[in-house]
Amino acid sequence: MSKLTDVPKRILIGRALRSDRLGETLLPKRIALPVFASDPLSSVAYAPGEVLLVLSIAGVSAYHFSPWIAVAVVVLMFTVVASYRQNVHAYPSGGGDYEVATTNLGPRAGLTVASALLVDYVLTVAVSIASGIENLGSAVPFVVQHKVLCAVAVIVLLTLMNLRGVKESGKLFAIPTYVFVGGVFVMIAWGAFRGLVLGDSMRAPTADYHIKAEHQGLAGFALVFLLLRAFSSGCAALTGVEAISNGVPAFRKPKSKNAATTLAMMGLLAVTMFCGIIALAMTTKVHMAENPATDLLHNGVGLGSGYVQNPVISQVAEAVFGKGSFLFVVLAAATALVLFLAANTAYNGFPLLGSILAQDRYLPRQLHTRGDRLAFSNGIVLLAGAASLLTIIYGADSTRLIQLYIVGVFVSFTLSQTGMVRHWNRHLATETDDAKRRHMMRSRAINAFGAFFTGLVLVVVLVTKFTHGAWVALMGMCIFYATMTAIRRHYDRVAEEIAAPESPAADDDLTRPSRVRSVVLISKIHRPTLRALAYAKLMRSDTLEALTVNVDAAETKALREEWERRGIDVPLKVLDSPYREVTRPVIEYVKSLRAESPRDAVSVIIPEYVVGHWYEHLLHNQSALRLKGRLLFTPGVMVTSVPYQLASSEAAKLRARRRQEWSAPGAVRRGPAAERAKATPAAKESPAAKD
Amino acid sequence: MSKLTDVPKRILIGRALRSDRLGETLLPKRIALPVFASDPLSSVAYAPGEVLLVLSIAGVSAYHFSPWIAVAVVVLMFTVVASYRQNVHAYPSGGGDYEVATTNLGPRAGLTVASALLVDYVLTVAVSIASGIENLGSAVPFVVQHKVLCAVAVIVLLTLMNLRGVKESGKLFAIPTYVFVGGVFVMIAWGAFRGLVLGDSMRAPTADYHIKAEHQGLAGFALVFLLLRAFSSGCAALTGVEAISNGVPAFRKPKSKNAATTLAMMGLLAVTMFCGIIALAMTTKVHMAENPATDLLHNGVGLGSGYVQNPVISQVAEAVFGKGSFLFVVLAAATALVLFLAANTAYNGFPLLGSILAQDRYLPRQLHTRGDRLAFSNGIVLLAGAASLLTIIYGADSTRLIQLYIVGVFVSFTLSQTGMVRHWNRHLATETDDAKRRHMMRSRAINAFGAFFTGLVLVVVLVTKFTHGAWVALMGMCIFYATMTAIRRHYDRVAEEIAAPESPAADDDLTRPSRVRSVVLISKIHRPTLRALAYAKLMRSDTLEALTVNVDAAETKALREEWERRGIDVPLKVLDSPYREVTRPVIEYVKSLRAESPRDAVSVIIPEYVVGHWYEHLLHNQSALRLKGRLLFTPGVMVTSVPYQLASSEAAKLRARRRQEWSAPGAVRRGPAAERAKATPAAKESPAAKD
Repeated sequence: MSKLTDVPKRILIGRALRSDRLGETLLPKRIALPVFASDPLSSVAYAPGEVLLVLSIAGVSAYHFSPWIAVAVVVLMFTVVASYRQNVHAYPSGGGDYEVATTNLGPRAGLTVASALLVDYVLTVAVSIASGIENLGSAVPFVVQHKVLCAVAVIVLLTLMNLRGVKESGKLFAIPTYVFVGGVFVMIAWGAFRGLVLGDSMRAPTADYHIKAEHQGLAGFALVFLLLRAFSSGCAALTGVEAISNGVPAFRKPKSKNAATTLAMMGLLAVTMFCGIIALAMTTKVHMAENPATDLLHNGVGLGSGYVQNPVISQVAEAVFGKGSFLFVVLAAATALVLFLAANTAYNGFPLLGSILAQDRYLPRQLHTRGDRLAFSNGIVLLAGAASLLTIIYGADSTRLIQLYIVGVFVSFTLSQTGMVRHWNRHLATETDDAKRRHMMRSRAINAFGAFFTGLVLVVVLVTKFTHGAWVALMGMCIFYATMTAIRRHYDRVAEEIAAPESPAADDDLTRPSRVRSVVLISKIHRPTLRALAYAKLMRSDTLEALTVNVDAAETKALREEWERRGIDVPLKVLDSPYREVTRPVIEYVKSLRAESPRDAVSVIIPEYVVGHWYEHLLHNQSALRLKGRLLFTPGVMVTSVPYQLASSEAAKLRARRRQEWSAPGAVRRGPAAERAKATPAAKESPAAKD
Repeated sequence: MSKLTDVPKRILIGRALRSDRLGETLLPKRIALPVFASDPLSSVAYAPGEVLLVLSIAGVSAYHFSPWIAVAVVVLMFTVVASYRQNVHAYPSGGGDYEVATTNLGPRAGLTVASALLVDYVLTVAVSIASGIENLGSAVPFVVQHKVLCAVAVIVLLTLMNLRGVKESGKLFAIPTYVFVGGVFVMIAWGAFRGLVLGDSMRAPTADYHIKAEHQGLAGFALVFLLLRAFSSGCAALTGVEAISNGVPAFRKPKSKNAATTLAMMGLLAVTMFCGIIALAMTTKVHMAENPATDLLHNGVGLGSGYVQNPVISQVAEAVFGKGSFLFVVLAAATALVLFLAANTAYNGFPLLGSILAQDRYLPRQLHTRGDRLAFSNGIVLLAGAASLLTIIYGADSTRLIQLYIVGVFVSFTLSQTGMVRHWNRHLATETDDAKRRHMMRSRAINAFGAFFTGLVLVVVLVTKFTHGAWVALMGMCIFYATMTAIRRHYDRVAEEIAAPESPAADDDLTRPSRVRSVVLISKIHRPTLRALAYAKLMRSDTLEALTVNVDAAETKALREEWERRGIDVPLKVLDSPYREVTRPVIEYVKSLRAESPRDAVSVIIPEYVVGHWYEHLLHNQSALRLKGRLLFTPGVMVTSVPYQLASSEAAKLRARRRQEWSAPGAVRRGPAAERAKATPAAKESPAAKD
């Protein structure tokens, strides 16, 4: 049935790769780190540059504030990491921020977090790929000259990979992530060595440029505002930190402890890289501007629209390693690769969150069950479509896309941390053991500080970035929120409508029909109809008749004669059809049966061909399908298909089987289903999960 | 089921108008003439011009050959009309050329004719609308300045009208057709009066232009070839003559006689108009050229690409009535309208022929039954798409489109007339009555001359037009022929595969299953599942159990408890699903039941929600649909849907009902089904109709 709509997709993406089912291995820390941290670690590739860009508005002198902004980001990072370490201990089921917010603050807060995260996933794809293209472009100019095209191509590639169900593998993540982290550390170390020990003067390619300040000599409130904006941009380094809290079930035991440790490692690596890059950028005198074409001057002359502003990390690498050197190219490639992997995490996280939301009936139910490839595919295509749209609208410019990015992250941080405070309050109300109480109070303090700080940052981000694009992200959140509320409302309404009454006698609708009258639809006598007749007889209904519609008098006559000749012991009823229709006479006959004896049910048995190809499908069953569709609206009727498998159906059967054996995106980070089930008791507190 | 794919169409075309069903009235001759003859009569709007265009290649002196070409066309017209008068008497069932060729020359000839006619319908739309736009353009310059756009707009409009099922009404045809015919006759009469009696010198707007001959002073073979080409173009006047022979059942009694009379009237009107327009064009000195921009000179200077060459009929009308006069505008409007109506006849003829072809299994079966809106719609959209494509490719230039046009017509003429000769031969072999024999021999002579003459013209057309575009039409015919052959082959193969053996005992496949084991799929306890359980119990199968898949341990536990609390007297079987899938465990369980006792059939009963909107459909039944699709491939299974109509389904039910009450295109010209059935014995001779 779903075959027809599936065809264009199948042509495009081919068949799922045969792979081990769901990869039931748990992740050791050394693999979990790259799997979950490629997103936050990769953000150091663009976050430092964004800080410098914003500061450049007040001229190069404002660059001196950058270490202070770095310090603020580091403090924020430690706060967030410390907060989430509490989360992974308290909620080992992997529901993440959505679960924490729903459980402690109610479904609306949960849905807000979910909307924010969904928007975030879209932006993770758009920002990471745009930044990856820019980094790749510093080594391969062609790429940056065809920025939008290349970015969309990478999105399409990732989409096809995920639609085909290429399994996320720990190793795939580990190598580029460790090469990237290693490369940045080598760069920082070598840069420090050259600068401090050898006393080399390393100069970035933009070291000799001058910045034309848009607002020279900012002071007072305006300066504070600018610094806050720069800080907001630097906060891009924090995106993706929450990923580990969604993935606790995928860790080896002790799960929560390992997850917390990995979180700490991730935080430490991120801040070191962030600060190191900022420091090197200061040392090598990197100059960046929001509008490099006009605001960056070389010998007093603007650089013009042909100038491509390379990312900070690549300018620094050029200064430290030398332009075009082996290490420079390796680092650029690893940076791009890690950024693409970060985008890929969104492909895994989006359907995963969708599946959790589907469980709470905010999204179509079929997203909940695994292995439902079609539902996952729709999610992936939606994600890719939205990300491509943003990429095209914003010209694959990471700086412009980042303006949209951080709102969602901090909405989810703030609500999650607030929820954690409530969580500890509730537990403290019943806990009597003093040691445990002290522990809880410490956790509560951490989360409270986290909630306060991230909330503050959220306000700063909203104030400083709203007009720069944050409103787009907010609008996206509203759309997700409204859609999911509507879906939930629909399901609730239906659930109410179909709820079974406690005493069946009280309900008209459920008065048992007393008899069943079966009707087998016949067009010709052949194997499918004979099989349908044989099956119908087996069912021993109260009455059984065969039904044919007289579309062509000669054919009907021939059918009647053959019926008698073969001595088929089921009465054959012929319906007249003055207009050569099939559906209407059958529907009217069924209705007349019901009118005769309203307490009888009618069972309509339809022989159906099962064919192998969609175009064959167009040649068969069309009248049957239409009739079935109409019969479903007729009360008191059940419709039975008796399939007859044509030889060509074998091919389709194999195809359907293969299609089922794909690996759902997010399988690795989600952990095995059994592990998840074990860990879910906490989730049962959720009001949404109860009904 | 078909609802989903239907949605985009519904949005576009809205709901079918409520109209009287199929218009069961038979047509009197005065209405039948405009209904069937708008196509051949309207072709006099472009055929005379095409003759002049071709002749202009040899310079204006060649125009003197045009009366001779007109004579040839007239002779051909009389021949064809006389021939088809034999057809309508011999084949009153309305199968037309396809039936005649199939019955007398075999299915391949029939299929060739059908392919030719299908191509012809596409070209009727393209040519008529292009010409209509050109005629309208002579009064409304905007239209001709945006030729392609306007032509496509008219195609879209006609398509929407036909998709909505706006009924063809006799009156709709009668008024513009009679205005057009009347207008042309008034023009001819007034022109003759002014010229012969008043001695006015009427001058066409192009009378003072000179034609730069592409080949000056052609002689011998080259001249003959050119004259033949001009004659081929003039033959465009004959397109659509065969329409009446398809529509005999729609006539009042005596059907064949009335049809033959109408045919004769149509022929007479057409040749009079054709000759009159040629004569007036000569008198008023119309000058036309194939490439007016370069080959038409005014005071020795080319007219340039801005020059729009108006059709002959409008140039003549301008000369006779005066530019912008009331009668001129009326005639231009009527001409355009009749040409659009001619295009509309193709919208009616295409699905009508499709339905006959479907009866012989050359096209999907559902085209055969009437009132199957979806199937008709597909035909209409195919026709419109092909016509739009040609219109765009050929720039809505009627002259270029006509090159493709006439091949199909003459293929079908020639084969039909050859078939008629065979028909008479066969009847003469058994007929003994002398009077009848004489009559038959006369008819045979007419048809033989018709076959010879039209065959000759076919050769002329192919030779003179092949490189000018006829090859496109031939290619189109080949595509239709190949597709229809493949469809027929598929149906034949399936028919063979499913043919019922004479003695059921001889066949493994049909050994009756001994028992049936019913399984009701349960997800939760609510009205739909309770209804499904109640219906399943009614069926009294040998075993009955309820089946649920354990996707969520807590939900399953709750289900089990409620099951016991309610005391449901059907055993509940729980299938484990380690990967949270639904389809696979059920399929495997069903297979295991079959493996246990291979002679049992398994009945799977699925509760199904019936909702009102397609987007609601996305929220329900998706797992059920997928499961159903997979179960159909499992042998020995029947699948029963027990629908539960949600409140919102009422809307959809009404919609479905309204959708059924549309009028199928071609209903008027096809005649009531009963009339057709009465007349079909002749069709039973057809080998295709027998099997």
